[in-house]
Order: sequence, then structure tokens, then C-alpha cells
Amino acid sequence: MARAGSPYGACKFLDRKCVKGCVFAPYFCHEQGPAHFAAIHKVFGASNVSKLLANLPVGERHEAVVTISYEAQARLHDPIYGSVSHIFSLQQQIRLLSP
Amino acid sequence: MARAGSPYGACKFLDRKCVKGCVFAPYFCHEQGPAHFAAIHKVFGASNVSKLLANLPVGERHEAVVTISYEAQARLHDPIYGSVSHIFSLQQQIRLLSP
Repeated sequence: MARAGSPYGACKFLDRKCVKGCVFAPYFCHEQGPAHFAAIHKVFGASNVSKLLANLPVGERHEAVVTISYEAQARLHDPIYGSVSHIFSLQQQIRLLSP
Repeated sequence: MARAGSPYGACKFLDRKCVKGCVFAPYFCHEQGPAHFAAIHKVFGASNVSKLLANLPVGERHEAVVTISYEAQARLHDPIYGSVSHIFSLQQQIRLLSP
């Protein structure tokens, strides 16, 4: 958890001081925090994601951040198919494995 | 394709007049256009998606709209896992099918 006032991943990226109760604070204080947050902000927008997280119970926000971060990075890597390219690839594997 | 000035899915949702060359125009003029656009706008933001589409060749934008629309609807349906719940389910099927 970031110290009060010390910029963690999201605030570092947005170049602002951390505010108490920020919905992003617990999820971006690791080394890749700023990079993960930058991807999320570019693809979804910080405001949209903060609303989504604020509407979830605290205990379920970490999983939501992980999946949103995955989708954001997939969309930056593959702007046409994003994470759906992974779905296509898994569906193809299932077709090959099916009797 | 929407007639010039007639509101199609995105403009209808944003309550604005269609402008010539709007990046969304070709992709939301079907019956579910406004609903699909509403989901995309809520999850990704119209501005982020318009930038993403503008950076793609015209011939690849339709596929991008389809996959973004799928991800948006999946996230509204399942705010914690979004489309990643489909990935988990396919991975589980592969584990069951693998020898």
C-alpha cells in the first residue's frame, strides 16, 4: 500500500498527489503499477474504471483490476482483436482437441 | 450507412447531429446500434474508441468495433471478469479435453 501522499502507480502516471480513499491506490503500488495504469487509462480511461471499481465490493476489486489490466494490455498489443484473439485461439484449440 | 444528418446509433446515443466523416458512422447504423454504442461508451469511452479506430486502416475497423463491442457487453454483464470469464471457461474446457 502506498504511503499517504507518496505517489503510487496511478498518481505517478497522472502526475497528481495521492488522495485518501483513492479507489486505485491498493492496486497499482507495485513496480509495474505506472505501466499497467497507463495501459488501462489509454484503453478504458481512468474515470470509467474508477466508476466500475467504485460499484464493486472492495473484496472483488482486485480481480477486476487484474482482468481490466489484461484486456487493456491485449488491446494495446493487438488493436483490432485485443483479448478476443486469445478467445479465438482457445476456440481453435478446442476444435482440434474435440473428438 | 446513415443518411447525412440522420442520427445513427452513436449520434442518437450522444444526442448530436451526425458530422461528415465521423469514425463511428459505418458501424452503428443497425437496429442494435444505439445499445451497442451505449455499452462501448460506458466501458471504454467514445473518445478512447474513436482514437483507436482512427489509428486503424479503414478495412480493419469493423473487426475492431465487433471485438470492442463484445468486450464492452461482457464487462457490463460481468463487471469483475468481463470477457476474461470466457477465457477461463475455454481454458477449463481444454483441460477437460486434454489427454
